[in-house]
Amino acid sequence: MAEGSRVCWKQCCGATKKRLPVLKWLPKYSLQWLQFDLIAGLTVGLTVVPQALAYAVVAGLPVQYGLYSSFMGCFVYFLLGTSKDVTLGPTAIMSLLVSSYASHDPANAVLLAFLSGCIQLAMGLLHLGFLLDFVSYPVIKGFTSAAAVTIGFNQIKALLGLQNIPRQFVLQVYYTFCKIGETRAADAILGLFCLIFLVGLQQMKKSIPRSHRMESFSVRISHLIVWTAATARNALVVLFAGLVAYSFQVMGSQPFTLTGATPQGLPPFQPPPFSKVTPNGTVSFQKMVQAMGDGLVVVPLMGLLETVAIAKAFASQNNYQIDSNQELLAMGFTNILGSFVSSYPVTGSFGRTALNAQTGVCTPAGGLITGAVVLLSLAYLTSLFYYIPEAALAAVIICAVAPMFDAKIFCTLWQVKRLDLLPLSVTFLLCFWEVQYGIIAGVLVSGVLLLYPIARPRIKVLNHGALVIQPASGLNFPAIEFLRETVYKQALSGPQLHSVILDCTHVSDIDYTVVLGLSELFQEFQHKRLSFIFTGLQAHVRQVLLAANLEGFCSIPNLNDAEKILKEEPCSPREVFFDDGSETILPTSGIIQ
Amino acid sequence: MAEGSRVCWKQCCGATKKRLPVLKWLPKYSLQWLQFDLIAGLTVGLTVVPQALAYAVVAGLPVQYGLYSSFMGCFVYFLLGTSKDVTLGPTAIMSLLVSSYASHDPANAVLLAFLSGCIQLAMGLLHLGFLLDFVSYPVIKGFTSAAAVTIGFNQIKALLGLQNIPRQFVLQVYYTFCKIGETRAADAILGLFCLIFLVGLQQMKKSIPRSHRMESFSVRISHLIVWTAATARNALVVLFAGLVAYSFQVMGSQPFTLTGATPQGLPPFQPPPFSKVTPNGTVSFQKMVQAMGDGLVVVPLMGLLETVAIAKAFASQNNYQIDSNQELLAMGFTNILGSFVSSYPVTGSFGRTALNAQTGVCTPAGGLITGAVVLLSLAYLTSLFYYIPEAALAAVIICAVAPMFDAKIFCTLWQVKRLDLLPLSVTFLLCFWEVQYGIIAGVLVSGVLLLYPIARPRIKVLNHGALVIQPASGLNFPAIEFLRETVYKQALSGPQLHSVILDCTHVSDIDYTVVLGLSELFQEFQHKRLSFIFTGLQAHVRQVLLAANLEGFCSIPNLNDAEKILKEEPCSPREVFFDDGSETILPTSGIIQ
Repeated sequence: MAEGSRVCWKQCCGATKKRLPVLKWLPKYSLQWLQFDLIAGLTVGLTVVPQALAYAVVAGLPVQYGLYSSFMGCFVYFLLGTSKDVTLGPTAIMSLLVSSYASHDPANAVLLAFLSGCIQLAMGLLHLGFLLDFVSYPVIKGFTSAAAVTIGFNQIKALLGLQNIPRQFVLQVYYTFCKIGETRAADAILGLFCLIFLVGLQQMKKSIPRSHRMESFSVRISHLIVWTAATARNALVVLFAGLVAYSFQVMGSQPFTLTGATPQGLPPFQPPPFSKVTPNGTVSFQKMVQAMGDGLVVVPLMGLLETVAIAKAFASQNNYQIDSNQELLAMGFTNILGSFVSSYPVTGSFGRTALNAQTGVCTPAGGLITGAVVLLSLAYLTSLFYYIPEAALAAVIICAVAPMFDAKIFCTLWQVKRLDLLPLSVTFLLCFWEVQYGIIAGVLVSGVLLLYPIARPRIKVLNHGALVIQPASGLNFPAIEFLRETVYKQALSGPQLHSVILDCTHVSDIDYTVVLGLSELFQEFQHKRLSFIFTGLQAHVRQVLLAANLEGFCSIPNLNDAEKILKEEPCSPREVFFDDGSETILPTSGIIQ
Repeated sequence: MAEGSRVCWKQCCGATKKRLPVLKWLPKYSLQWLQFDLIAGLTVGLTVVPQALAYAVVAGLPVQYGLYSSFMGCFVYFLLGTSKDVTLGPTAIMSLLVSSYASHDPANAVLLAFLSGCIQLAMGLLHLGFLLDFVSYPVIKGFTSAAAVTIGFNQIKALLGLQNIPRQFVLQVYYTFCKIGETRAADAILGLFCLIFLVGLQQMKKSIPRSHRMESFSVRISHLIVWTAATARNALVVLFAGLVAYSFQVMGSQPFTLTGATPQGLPPFQPPPFSKVTPNGTVSFQKMVQAMGDGLVVVPLMGLLETVAIAKAFASQNNYQIDSNQELLAMGFTNILGSFVSSYPVTGSFGRTALNAQTGVCTPAGGLITGAVVLLSLAYLTSLFYYIPEAALAAVIICAVAPMFDAKIFCTLWQVKRLDLLPLSVTFLLCFWEVQYGIIAGVLVSGVLLLYPIARPRIKVLNHGALVIQPASGLNFPAIEFLRETVYKQALSGPQLHSVILDCTHVSDIDYTVVLGLSELFQEFQHKRLSFIFTGLQAHVRQVLLAANLEGFCSIPNLNDAEKILKEEPCSPREVFFDDGSETILPTSGIIQ
């Protein structure tokens, strides 16, 4: 009895630990870990605040929504995450998707977060993560490259201070060039300066040599300063630009386009909006959901894809294992709980996860610090956001998305596998029309490339008096019409009719549509008093054909025997190995002649 | 020169005849053919008029739209059709689809016909007919069986004279039973009588014995009368019911629910409505198209599916060849031109095509007579349609759709191939929710069944000291994660690490996602100082891997050699057949150890 309850207790413990990974690492937590987690958490916090403001602009939402979306992921992932490096929060790609599905309305965006979370949770519970396997690498690359161009170009207008530019990419390019004369000099100068500053710091960070013990203290200190400045470059740029704008404001003139007033304080904790009131009346839940359309598939799936891809990449790099399924649960809970604090859909951020790993984070506890930084900025800094110039945020975004554009992939695919250029190009080009169409079309094209060999298997035709027809691979329903046409063309449409031996050596499975197609073909041959003989049937394929009860069905194990039988005189009785392996005397007239 | 122009002329002639099949058979037309075509055309005409009225009710449109849709197909198919038997026109299934996509508005239905026609024409020109191969037989059966139940039950309310029953199937069943007390006795009695009459005549037709020359003249005449009455049973029932209703009207009381006033005359010839005016303002073309949604995929595809399936069935039965592509063109033109005479989408009708074949039609010229009958009824009979009781039309529909319900298919699939019950059941059940969801879900489920073996290939793992891992079939991108996990679990996660030999004997093709996954796996093994050796690579697969430039990539043609190399002492140089077939001395440290 005591033994049983102990086993049960152990199992319960194991299951709880699997679902709450924090229970595994928290008891072992040490002071040394705390030190690293603190530094990493702070660093990521200083990056996420300016990025969140900027991504909210990409999503077409007021800037505070970026911050509302940035803290819940840190706290939930602390409890549920299986990777020490991953940080959840707003990302460039998710913001782009939100901008195209939420029609720039925070209510839609928050509801989308809630529904995406529910779908991700359900997928996690139903173990549907395998669906991600059907998104091939060329599709992902085509999508991220196009997204980098779209998001980057989208910021040019803010960098130049242009107004009234439409959202659609092609129109955007057209109008940006049309209105280039309306560029506001101050915005453009500040924006370009920020851009140069960011790129410069990024390059400096790359060129810091590995520190050696032999180096003097001052050299090491200078390296540390450069490293710190480069790591917190986004915060520095935004701070600097804000100070410049504030100085002008104090002097009584304002040459920059500013972010403007932002509501003070933390977001209220309330359920997501299941209906909304507009000047034209109340929009019901059903209408809101309908307006999101395929966003309810694309947003949760892309969210999962980003998180799982990032988690796997860093797990492999830092030598630990993640549990994809648990990651889905963490994502789902983040989005659901996030929607209660007005968050829009979030996912794993590649840039900040890399920063987290680089700064030497030891456990997901680093996220607690990051979350606290975001909450503190929301509580005390929102009034200062007024002075952040839009051009500075644009520069932050452009630097963040630039590495996502990968021109080399086109060359690589040209060298390695040209056929994969098709899904890549389709995805890349259509993403400029609408992001979601690009992804869906890419997945469909790669699906078609997968299905083509199934629908059009190679079929070998040999003419040894009787026609021998041999499909080179399986026979599935999309192939049956093709097989029928081939048989028809070869055996029944010429001046001379032929009997047919269907060699099924390579057919490992068969479905009912194929059975039906074969039986029709079979009857047509009977009708014309020609033979249609199966050879090389594998046991379970023969069983399926037998179950279909074809009248006069004849299967001969060996191809040579089948040919011999067909070559014999048509009017003498002869022995045939029937489908059940027994030998049978056939009547002289009828099926086989 | 003259020779050249003669060849050119011949080619032109051939191409024209291929596109206008009427040119092939019209020059050979004979008086005997005319006689058969006349009888068949008349017979089909007498069937199509009452069916058209009834199907318009199914489509949720005023009854005259059924007739508007019934004549264009006859004339177009006369010029463009390649099957003598097929008759195009309104059908039960297409009417059901129209009712769910056109929201009971003739303007939507006519525009849907135009757009479907354009899509079908484009598919014909682009040779996209192969898409139909992806609709498997269980999906078709599930759909037609569910449609039979839906359409049939939909008519119960008209048969019983019930009012205000919602369209959605589940609600319909519920409300029909709730309101069964409100049954109008006269409608119910007339409806049941018509039903019994129709079933009786159908059974009588089946039991007419084959006529023998020995039989007396009177017996043969009586057989002919029964056959004629049974063949024209729909027209007879509608005529009879109309007469009864008219008699009551003359006597001053009307116990039946009548069809009501129908506009007199032929439809105007005008372009389809590209926008429409409603009490709430003008609805633009874009809005109308958006409202149709996936109808623009489902309607053209189902139309093609029905026509091609029917044409193939009768071509095979009556021993002639059809050209699927030309059938698509005929369908497309019918719908486009039809939309100019207010037709809703049409397709091949199984029932009327069978009747046409049975009556001995010789050429598509029979359609001209059918079309003329429809036009004459529109011109002179519409005022009489007022008196047709709805219950009689309901009886006509129920008899027409009953044979579409096939309960046996469930047993057949259980015996022959149980897995196919899944797409069948999914399609069947979801069709009761919304027809289109049923079809789409069925196609997706059968697609998943096709893709499953691609995503999860069988992988053989042998442990001969080194692990030998052998995928049993091809390696495509959906399988790479699965392969990686298998390798990881077998070789890297246990207490003892293993080198791996990947035996690619059965891998006939490889894509870039797989290359990338393999190269990551490869690097992980290098990182851990373990070997990862490829064997059995087919020439073009090896070429793709070589093009990807994996550092230290090692392919050994023969599995035994690979095992031997791995078993040798790790620190002695040894000979390896490198990917290019040459023998090379490997350094002792590094990749292979």
